Amino acid sequence: MCELLGMSANVPTDICFSFSGLLERGGNTGPHKDGWGITFYEGKGCRSFKDPLPSFESEIAKLVKSYPIKSCAVISHIRQANRGRVCLENTHPFTRELWGRSFTYAHNGQLTGYKSLTTKHFHPIGNTDSELAFCWLLSEVKEKYPTKPKNMKSAFRYIAKLCSQLQAMGVFNMLLTDGVYVLAYCSNNLHWITRKAPFGKATLIDAEMMVDFQQETTPNDIVTVIATRPLTNDEEWQKMNSGESILFRHGEVV
Amino acid sequence: MCELLGMSANVPTDICFSFSGLLERGGNTGPHKDGWGITFYEGKGCRSFKDPLPSFESEIAKLVKSYPIKSCAVISHIRQANRGRVCLENTHPFTRELWGRSFTYAHNGQLTGYKSLTTKHFHPIGNTDSELAFCWLLSEVKEKYPTKPKNMKSAFRYIAKLCSQLQAMGVFNMLLTDGVYVLAYCSNNLHWITRKAPFGKATLIDAEMMVDFQQETTPNDIVTVIATRPLTNDEEWQKMNSGESILFRHGEVV
Repeated sequence: MCELLGMSANVPTDICFSFSGLLERGGNTGPHKDGWGITFYEGKGCRSFKDPLPSFESEIAKLVKSYPIKSCAVISHIRQANRGRVCLENTHPFTRELWGRSFTYAHNGQLTGYKSLTTKHFHPIGNTDSELAFCWLLSEVKEKYPTKPKNMKSAFRYIAKLCSQLQAMGVFNMLLTDGVYVLAYCSNNLHWITRKAPFGKATLIDAEMMVDFQQETTPNDIVTVIATRPLTNDEEWQKMNSGESILFRHGEVV
Repeated sequence: MCELLGMSANVPTDICFSFSGLLERGGNTGPHKDGWGITFYEGKGCRSFKDPLPSFESEIAKLVKSYPIKSCAVISHIRQANRGRVCLENTHPFTRELWGRSFTYAHNGQLTGYKSLTTKHFHPIGNTDSELAFCWLLSEVKEKYPTKPKNMKSAFRYIAKLCSQLQAMGVFNMLLTDGVYVLAYCSNNLHWITRKAPFGKATLIDAEMMVDFQQETTPNDIVTVIATRPLTNDEEWQKMNSGESILFRHGEVV
């Protein structure tokens, strides 16, 4: 399978701490050595760093870990291949433009019977179930909303509905963002935590690393981190239920 | 204006040497300090590195310069902003998916009257003339070829035709690739060179750097580099004519 990591924040925040924990699972503390990727939004723009190499020994991952890029919406993924070989085009996250916005997505799980999904407006470049599901999701959304809806929340609610159809095909844990909203859909494995004042300390499970968020934040910061498995062992992560979706904006549930 | 760099090769080749020269023009030997980007194709996949910071002092550019990513098609751009402010979403190259392939594009020049261009299938995320022109190009191509044409060359010939319409709006030097073909369109400023056996030495204009390609290549390698201004001072670059387009594939003119 794979591991997912996402962030939604009300101020541009770096994800170096959480990403450092995730990276270790890419071939060191975890078996997810078939590539990794991370997408940062800055304003309406986004940039991805991707590598089909194991994350724990990737030169590019080292840079991302040590070079704090501040963002209000981030999605990251480390891969253990099941459908689709190990190569760049099969490396998450996947991004497409819809309504003049970049939508980015990553998936954990495995689908069966997914080849029947028809995608009208977006087409997969690689051959994973994940990318095909993403293209289907966005195609369905574009069918329903040919132009950008005034109420973006309703579009995300619709995406969540579509996710339950995908869950019927197998395991479908997912993160999807347009840079403002971050949607988390849980099939069987997704946890989240919101950090806000009063901030405390946290210790990574996968690496010897501790952070005192009080030193790194201002009292108004609100930062939510979402991950397939909790990344710290001294904080209370909330486990999502099967079939549950949560929409975040500026670090808070909306 | 800006500077463009592109490569087409018949074997995966790194572009570290040429990119090192280009980078210096991003705030050191040239005034193009408003961001930079580079897109590498590996198989059907591609990955971009982008930064709205000046390239000659960018941490990410340092990584790209020293970490040889081997590719058969590359497009790079360093920006001196005219239309659109300095920010990530306005940073070239731009990428969109069409027919299940990634198309990547970068532009040098400036257009007027471009806001009248209507884009049916692709929409700009930022607010540059360049990205709008790209969305228009791809929209027109998708109108003419709703599904992937068997003869990709004809699609690129059509894009070249469309480019001449854009040239009528101002200055339009452009590189565009789908990872297999690289199309160069010259409005007033584009040069190219094909390196093949017998290989020689070359010296960068913008940095103290020399390479002996014979040490770096095999006799069958064919590598074409395209740039707004020649990058080396001891090789013969060919200057393109105004309104001329050249389509490259595997390093050779097709």
